[in-house]
Amino acid sequence: MPFAVPVAEQRFLLQHVAGIDALAAMPAFADATPDMVDAVLEGAAAFAEGSFAPLNRVGDTVGARRTEAGVTMPPGYVAAYHDYVAGGWGTIDADVAQGGQGLPFSVATAVLESLGTANLSFALCPTLTVGAIEATSAHGSASQQAMYLPKLVTGEWTGTMNLTEPQAGSDVGALRTTATPQADGTYRIKGTKIYISYGEHDLAENIVHLVLARTPGAPAGTRGISLFVVPRFRVGADGAIGAANDVRCVSIEHKMGLHASPTCVMSFGDRDDCIGEIVGPEHGGMRAMFTMMNNARLNVGLQGVEIAERATQAAVDYATVRVQSARAGAASRESVAIVEHPDVRRMLLRMKALTQGARALCYHAAGQVDRAHQGDAAARVRVDLMTPLVKAYGTDVGVEVSGIGIQVHGGMGFIEETGAAQHYRDARIAPIYEGTNGIQAADLVGRKLTGDGGAGLAALLAEIRGEAADEAGLMMLVDSVERVAEALRVGDGDDRLAGSYPFLTMLSVATAGWLMARQGRAAVGDDGFARMKRAVVRFYLDRLVPEATGLSAGALAGAAGLYAVGVEELVA
Amino acid sequence: MPFAVPVAEQRFLLQHVAGIDALAAMPAFADATPDMVDAVLEGAAAFAEGSFAPLNRVGDTVGARRTEAGVTMPPGYVAAYHDYVAGGWGTIDADVAQGGQGLPFSVATAVLESLGTANLSFALCPTLTVGAIEATSAHGSASQQAMYLPKLVTGEWTGTMNLTEPQAGSDVGALRTTATPQADGTYRIKGTKIYISYGEHDLAENIVHLVLARTPGAPAGTRGISLFVVPRFRVGADGAIGAANDVRCVSIEHKMGLHASPTCVMSFGDRDDCIGEIVGPEHGGMRAMFTMMNNARLNVGLQGVEIAERATQAAVDYATVRVQSARAGAASRESVAIVEHPDVRRMLLRMKALTQGARALCYHAAGQVDRAHQGDAAARVRVDLMTPLVKAYGTDVGVEVSGIGIQVHGGMGFIEETGAAQHYRDARIAPIYEGTNGIQAADLVGRKLTGDGGAGLAALLAEIRGEAADEAGLMMLVDSVERVAEALRVGDGDDRLAGSYPFLTMLSVATAGWLMARQGRAAVGDDGFARMKRAVVRFYLDRLVPEATGLSAGALAGAAGLYAVGVEELVA
Repeated sequence: MPFAVPVAEQRFLLQHVAGIDALAAMPAFADATPDMVDAVLEGAAAFAEGSFAPLNRVGDTVGARRTEAGVTMPPGYVAAYHDYVAGGWGTIDADVAQGGQGLPFSVATAVLESLGTANLSFALCPTLTVGAIEATSAHGSASQQAMYLPKLVTGEWTGTMNLTEPQAGSDVGALRTTATPQADGTYRIKGTKIYISYGEHDLAENIVHLVLARTPGAPAGTRGISLFVVPRFRVGADGAIGAANDVRCVSIEHKMGLHASPTCVMSFGDRDDCIGEIVGPEHGGMRAMFTMMNNARLNVGLQGVEIAERATQAAVDYATVRVQSARAGAASRESVAIVEHPDVRRMLLRMKALTQGARALCYHAAGQVDRAHQGDAAARVRVDLMTPLVKAYGTDVGVEVSGIGIQVHGGMGFIEETGAAQHYRDARIAPIYEGTNGIQAADLVGRKLTGDGGAGLAALLAEIRGEAADEAGLMMLVDSVERVAEALRVGDGDDRLAGSYPFLTMLSVATAGWLMARQGRAAVGDDGFARMKRAVVRFYLDRLVPEATGLSAGALAGAAGLYAVGVEELVA
Repeated sequence: MPFAVPVAEQRFLLQHVAGIDALAAMPAFADATPDMVDAVLEGAAAFAEGSFAPLNRVGDTVGARRTEAGVTMPPGYVAAYHDYVAGGWGTIDADVAQGGQGLPFSVATAVLESLGTANLSFALCPTLTVGAIEATSAHGSASQQAMYLPKLVTGEWTGTMNLTEPQAGSDVGALRTTATPQADGTYRIKGTKIYISYGEHDLAENIVHLVLARTPGAPAGTRGISLFVVPRFRVGADGAIGAANDVRCVSIEHKMGLHASPTCVMSFGDRDDCIGEIVGPEHGGMRAMFTMMNNARLNVGLQGVEIAERATQAAVDYATVRVQSARAGAASRESVAIVEHPDVRRMLLRMKALTQGARALCYHAAGQVDRAHQGDAAARVRVDLMTPLVKAYGTDVGVEVSGIGIQVHGGMGFIEETGAAQHYRDARIAPIYEGTNGIQAADLVGRKLTGDGGAGLAALLAEIRGEAADEAGLMMLVDSVERVAEALRVGDGDDRLAGSYPFLTMLSVATAGWLMARQGRAAVGDDGFARMKRAVVRFYLDRLVPEATGLSAGALAGAAGLYAVGVEELVA
């Protein structure tokens, strides 16, 4: 199926949602000139379309495989990954000192979006490497940074995040992997981790595992966790790759989607010879984990947008080619392309509106990340508030839009060869990993709503009201969000959690609606992009925003009804 | 995973929603005594649990396969199907004269539900046979009825519906298969049909294809279509099976789900020797097709309920076993089963509420089918109005609930071995086949809303108001439904279609909400079933009904916004 990165949309969002002009005016981002940003967007789009996109289907049909020699990627992936490294596509926002280009995270977001829209499974690998870079940058020693960062930034080595264990999924504090100190200051790591994306593969010469484990005598729960760096192959002081470390993939999962991404069960220290170094202070693992996870959560939210964009393009393409039935009420009884039928249009515009609304959340958050990195405290608060919204709403949108994509294809959508089914299957993991969307909702109504007395939320709502007061439907939703927030804040903890998910959706839609309204005002002129943008903005504000208002009853309904029956009755 | 047919729920719905007592009071259904109905429900449940359910997973992993010798079913299916025939599970509501038991369609609905909940792919075969029985009963000649009905009723022979061709999906009138009359009164059939479920298999000794085709000189479009019966093996006047007819499966589709159901490309008359008989009058094909499709649509809506029930049971089971994290705010820091966490409860109760609401629509429609068969004209109007609601809302519920099922399982939900993914994949075809849900919505706002001047809808809304006036939220939704219906009825055709889908959902939820409220009142006492029912009813009325009210803006938004941009901009 045809595929093109929506570069005009990316440029528009960088300008009007992320605020790239203001970023470029900061000394740190002086290089982010319009010409430079354009060159990056165009180059990334061409690379994504030419190298990553053509491998999406073979990634699904062949998938990553575990062999005696280790995990191998599907045909074409190794060469494309080498091109990715050679093109410097992983270096956009990394520090210049580490070999990066020092451009804004907002621009890196657009680049990652292009790769992920082309091939979600493949782009997950760089996404995880970013997490390893962030953790090492923030918490690693100077020698660790010197040893790992340059190779991670280029992508010559890839990174993983090793959190989950069979008994410790969302409850990270329950993990049991051990780290025993050695005389030389290193640690012996022993344990099993599951769901490790790209835990093993043949794309890169080394893999840098960041592993949460417990040191001897560590306190129970999350307070006793430390972070360790465990390379697949040991690295000499000179940076040369040495002998294999005692870490290996013992199984890969048979998943519903994302087949090209090897989801590994990793065994550390089978022969008691897995050597790692501690990253940051002992028992500082949770803080380091949140460093890794926060940007990862933004990037997973972006994955929802990516799969939604890909599904939308496929559906629009099919709808313009598939001829079926005359237009109802039309004089002509000739069959028309299904794009002409009102309900198909409704589906396509719903796909576009959801996708663009979720994308706006991603770019807004990215712009705030850049400001926060430059010391803007209000931007840091905004990023913290936006993170659960981006992650949960973005991934919910990915699921819904890919489902509509199947529907637009009719019977063909259920046939694997069409490709729509792959989007639907691939999309479904995103609401689960990097903290389930339920965890995001709990984070929102917990820390984010009550942690600062609600100041961050109040600031956001005030900004929305100040800018979009003329959108009556949006103002109704904002009022409703405020009422719900207040009720949840003063309410019982169970009631707060019971209403957390509908509240998260309401706030996400209110925020996206605000950013869509802004785009609608900015989309002046009569070119195709501007007219399309205005139509999609109206769809979002006139149809999706009122839907979200309907969630307030559920958000306020409380927990008592959920516990009116015991577990026995639920099972019966 | 454990699985049990919800027999208590079926019994409760037959009583309070389908009105089985009133049906049993009719002479035609005198056999439907409480004891008899109980025996049927219990027997079907035991058979579904013991024979169909254990084959669900192998059906997915092995699937139906096309070999040189024909299409073969997965291991165990042939034996289980023979047991189905021997048990008489297909004969429940068939005419006694044809070897049936003459029980109400409502009871047959419960039996089919049990089979489909156990194994959706497998139960699709009897579902299609029902369509063939209906068409042959309504339109076949006496000799056709004598030749085919007894074998179809027992299930010794199975039936198919051959409508779709590559260029004729939703637009049946575009079909090109030809039927050329022969001197002996038979026809030679020639053409290719696609998406023919159970078009070939090794379950039964013969397959009775009902095929739409055009006779020479027939008018274009739907007015020129006739229905033909084409057996896989020719049948002698004595009923004995003879030589193979010139019809065969030339390919089976590689689908995302429903793997045990062979979806065939059928070739008729490759050697110009495919013999069929016309069923009903020439050019009477569309009427016959609607006979087949109307009950099929009800049964496909039921499929949504089936997969939702199965997914819900799996999720509840997992949530009671999976231990993760302490309960927020609880004194104990011990980890608890995730069913104790408020947002997981919310998901489980949402699954139950959606499933039970959709089931109520199915049983209400089934009860009305029984009354319509006994000559009740108002019931016929109600069935016609309910059919698009049952089909579209039921299947939408199947998709949503199976998606929540994955979410409850967390990372395990994305792993195929868990089974939750199969439900999600299987569920996704139901909103497409037997008339896409968009077609259902068009049918609702077209024929069903305007055909009788809205009398059928007015009667339904009056009935809801009369019975559930004390449910304020439901009354708000009913008011909103009425306003939208009036606006759509007097509006432009495009506006009507543009609002059709949200309107369909609103009306479905209003109708389900009414039937749930009735169940809530009927569920007296302190047993587990009654307490669970009341909790689920409250969830439906307090949370799902207000959500549907939020759809009215979209239903009223009209078509202009959908056509504000041209196809070129949609593609760009």
